[in-house]
Amino acid sequence: MTTELRDLIAASQAAFKADPEKAKAVFSSKSALQEGLRSEAAMREHTLTVDEPESLGGKDAGPNPVELVLAALGTCQEITYRAYATALGIPLDAVSVELDGEIDLRGFLAVDDTVRPGYQGITGTVTLKSSASEAELQTLRDVVNAHCPVLDILRNPVPVELRLDTGAGSAVAAE
Amino acid sequence: MTTELRDLIAASQAAFKADPEKAKAVFSSKSALQEGLRSEAAMREHTLTVDEPESLGGKDAGPNPVELVLAALGTCQEITYRAYATALGIPLDAVSVELDGEIDLRGFLAVDDTVRPGYQGITGTVTLKSSASEAELQTLRDVVNAHCPVLDILRNPVPVELRLDTGAGSAVAAE
Repeated sequence: MTTELRDLIAASQAAFKADPEKAKAVFSSKSALQEGLRSEAAMREHTLTVDEPESLGGKDAGPNPVELVLAALGTCQEITYRAYATALGIPLDAVSVELDGEIDLRGFLAVDDTVRPGYQGITGTVTLKSSASEAELQTLRDVVNAHCPVLDILRNPVPVELRLDTGAGSAVAAE
Repeated sequence: MTTELRDLIAASQAAFKADPEKAKAVFSSKSALQEGLRSEAAMREHTLTVDEPESLGGKDAGPNPVELVLAALGTCQEITYRAYATALGIPLDAVSVELDGEIDLRGFLAVDDTVRPGYQGITGTVTLKSSASEAELQTLRDVVNAHCPVLDILRNPVPVELRLDTGAGSAVAAE
């Protein structure tokens, strides 16, 4: 595994350096609301049930969207730790992440439009098991945090353009 | 369902207006890397397998973290459409979302540090089935996009603070 992954990373880096067009990727999702607040999402062949807890009007058939954001960050950190530990030859026996996201529901429910609807902040702990030195692990942490896709997505604005299709023949302009 | 949800929204709005402390919520996730690049995440009682496709070094046992971000946005839009359509009394028979996220893997793989590791942009279509007028649906769209938590999380920076625990006794300061 380790050698294969290291070779894949090195080969990808060389290929993307030689031809930056090869580095361009598109990921996609499709989802549709079902009964109540439950939605079914598909990402390639993978499916996922999303719902709200009963306190927020759902039936709790799955995690809710803001919980998914935390899971995306935690798992992206873990994958990025594994990838860079492998690439840099730093031993890493285990990596796990615990995250909390603070939200003020007055934003979502339009009680106070000065309150943002999304997370006001995310805090958490990344736990590593490794025989590497503290200095190596801090270097690893810095490299991971500079290159973790979901950490970048959260810390920095992502342009989002959503077209509205009402089936009226002409789609409403993107907002 | 519709009446129950409308009543819940109205009751929550009144409760949060009367006592803003009640609007504060914390969502959480825990995750841990398993074999290869596969991670297992838990959000309350809900679990999720996350992995990378083989082209990115995984075994494709689940969606990858950046796909989860798209699914979080799509399902959050859908839930927010249902909530505000219900609250505003706008008929809504169906809502579905298709999203594409563009990424340049030179960012993740440190080939070019001027390239961001996360999405450079997300585009997509929200499809509504409704007997409401175009004007009502555009109003609904504007209200949804002003209050959708994950849309806010993506469009605007979220402060993220990650503590590193190396098991060395003293946790490394947050970064």
